[in-house]
Amino acid sequence: MDKKPYVIGLDLGGTNSEFGIVDQNANIIASTRVKTAGHGDVNQYVDDCVAALRPIIEKVGGIEKIHAMGIGAPNGNYYTGCIEFAPNLPWKGNIPLAQMFSERLGIPVRLTNDANAAAVGEMQYGVAKGMKNFIMITLGTGVGSGIVCNGEMVLGCDGMAGELGHVIVEKDGRQCGCGRKGCLECYCSATGIARTAREILEKTDKPTSLRNIPLDQIDGLAITLAAREGDAVALEIFEYTGRILGEACANFAAFSSPEAFVFFGGLSKAGDLIMNPIKKAYDENVLRVFKGKAKLLLSELDGAGAAVLGASALGWEVK
Amino acid sequence: MDKKPYVIGLDLGGTNSEFGIVDQNANIIASTRVKTAGHGDVNQYVDDCVAALRPIIEKVGGIEKIHAMGIGAPNGNYYTGCIEFAPNLPWKGNIPLAQMFSERLGIPVRLTNDANAAAVGEMQYGVAKGMKNFIMITLGTGVGSGIVCNGEMVLGCDGMAGELGHVIVEKDGRQCGCGRKGCLECYCSATGIARTAREILEKTDKPTSLRNIPLDQIDGLAITLAAREGDAVALEIFEYTGRILGEACANFAAFSSPEAFVFFGGLSKAGDLIMNPIKKAYDENVLRVFKGKAKLLLSELDGAGAAVLGASALGWEVK
Repeated sequence: MDKKPYVIGLDLGGTNSEFGIVDQNANIIASTRVKTAGHGDVNQYVDDCVAALRPIIEKVGGIEKIHAMGIGAPNGNYYTGCIEFAPNLPWKGNIPLAQMFSERLGIPVRLTNDANAAAVGEMQYGVAKGMKNFIMITLGTGVGSGIVCNGEMVLGCDGMAGELGHVIVEKDGRQCGCGRKGCLECYCSATGIARTAREILEKTDKPTSLRNIPLDQIDGLAITLAAREGDAVALEIFEYTGRILGEACANFAAFSSPEAFVFFGGLSKAGDLIMNPIKKAYDENVLRVFKGKAKLLLSELDGAGAAVLGASALGWEVK
Repeated sequence: MDKKPYVIGLDLGGTNSEFGIVDQNANIIASTRVKTAGHGDVNQYVDDCVAALRPIIEKVGGIEKIHAMGIGAPNGNYYTGCIEFAPNLPWKGNIPLAQMFSERLGIPVRLTNDANAAAVGEMQYGVAKGMKNFIMITLGTGVGSGIVCNGEMVLGCDGMAGELGHVIVEKDGRQCGCGRKGCLECYCSATGIARTAREILEKTDKPTSLRNIPLDQIDGLAITLAAREGDAVALEIFEYTGRILGEACANFAAFSSPEAFVFFGGLSKAGDLIMNPIKKAYDENVLRVFKGKAKLLLSELDGAGAAVLGASALGWEVK
C-alpha cells in the first residue's frame, strides 16, 4: 500500500495550539485551533484538541488517510515524546503528549521542540530541501535552533541538543532568563533587540524617529520600519544585533561546517536589514577553511502556517 | 567469509609516520616507522611506506589478512581521502593519500584528520565505547576535536567539521596562527599554556620554582611537575587554562548535548590538575537542562600507540 496522503501538524504555543492537515506538497488543506492558555488539565486539553480535529479529519476522508502526526512544542523531547518542564505552558513536570494523542487518534505521533520542527520543515518543504548539514536559527521571543548533521537531527544524549540561543557570546553580559549572563538570546531575540534599542537611545543624542515611541514599546517591527526610512539609529541597532549573530554563527561553523544557516521567525522578517550585518560579521570572523562555504538564508516557510508545516513534517519521518 | 582479522593504522605526523597492524582487541601486533620530514616527493614517500609495511604484513600472514587501512593526518578530509593544504607537512596542495595507499596495497583505505581518528579510536576501543554522542578534545601543539552525534562522525558539508580549537573564546584575545584572535587553541594548547605561564610570571612576584627555568623553555611538563609540588603559580596556570576550557565545553554542550567530553593528548596528561578546573568551570557555566549529564573523561588510549590505534579504528568502519 502507498503511504497515506496526509499528516497532521500541531504548532503548540503558550497561547494557541494551531492544527493543520498537510499534504506532501506542503499544502495545508484543513486547519483548526484550540486555546492552550487556560487549559490547566492536560487530559481535558487533549480531549478538546481531538474533538476539534475530528471534523477536519472527516473532511479529508477519515483517520485512515492520515499517515502520522507531528508536534512542535517548547521543551519537546523527541526521544521521549514528552514536554519537559516548559515554563510557558500551563502543565507542570513531564507531559507524555505524543503518547496521549497517539492513544486517542490511533496513529503514530512524533514530538520535538519548535526549532527542531522548523528545521525538519525546512528540510522537507523549504530552502534546506536536499541538504544534509545545516543549522536553523529561530529568532522569536527567544532564540532557538535546530541542527542537522549527516541528514539527521542532532538530538544529543537526552533529546535536548541545539540550544544555540544559550551559547554565551558575551562574558558577564546581559542577564538571561536562564539564570546565566551573556547568552545569544539576550541580544538577538525580540526582547534582545528591544533592549539594544533602549541602551543605544539612552547613550546617544542622535536624532531618530524611535524617540517618538515610548521606550518600553519599541519592538522589532518599529525598529524595522524606522530602518527602512534610513533612520541611522535604527540601522545601528540592526548592525549591532547582526554582528553578534554573525560572530556567533562563525563559531557554530567550526562545530558542524554546515552548508547553510537558515533564519526563521520574528527578526528575520527584517530581511536585508538584519541579514547584511550577519553576513558581514560572519565573513569577517569565520575560520579561513570555512569561508564562502555556508549560505546564509532566510526561511521559505516563514509566515502563516510555517510552524504547523514544520511540525507536520515530523509526521513524514515515521516509516 | 568472516571479517579479516587485522587493520593497518597510520598516524601521520609532521616528523614521523607511525604504522601499526592492529587486531580487533586493540592490540598492536606489529609496527614500523617512516620519516615524514624530508620526504618532499609524496610518491617516493608512499613507496617507502609500502616497502616498510611489506615485511610486517607478511609477518601477520599477508595482505589477505588485512581488512582495511585507516590514516589519521593533519587536514585530512574523510570525504575525499585527501590531505588538504597541511601547513606542517612537506607536500603542498591537495594530496590523494588514501587512493595512493589503496592502489599500492590493494585494500580499502580511509583517511580523516587526527582528532577525528582519535574519536573513532575512543569509540572503537576506549572510554567512548558504546556512546552515540560525545566530543573528543585533543590538547596537543594545537587544540583539535572530533564530534560524534547519533553514532556518526560529524564531518560537515566539506569533511572539515569539528574545528573547536578555533572557536573564538576571547574577543580581541591572543593572536592565533589562523590569523584571527582569541581562539580556544591560543589558551589550551601546549603553546597556549606556556604563553599563560609567561604572562602570569611577568605579572606576579609570587615565589615559584618556575622562575628557575628560562622563560622560553617553560612547557606543560614543567608546569605539571611544579603544580604537583603544590607550587601556587603553577596551580594558578592550570586554573586559568582549565577555566577557559570548561567554559568553552559548556557552550559546546548547548550544541550537541553530548554524553561525554573525552580529553586526549599533551595537556590531558596533567590529570586532575587540569580536569578539576575544567569540571568546575563546566558545572558553573553549563545551561541548567544539561547540568550533570555529560561526563568529563580522560582518554583511555592516551600514551604510546594511541594515535595509531585511533587511525586503525577507521579501518573497521569499512563494511
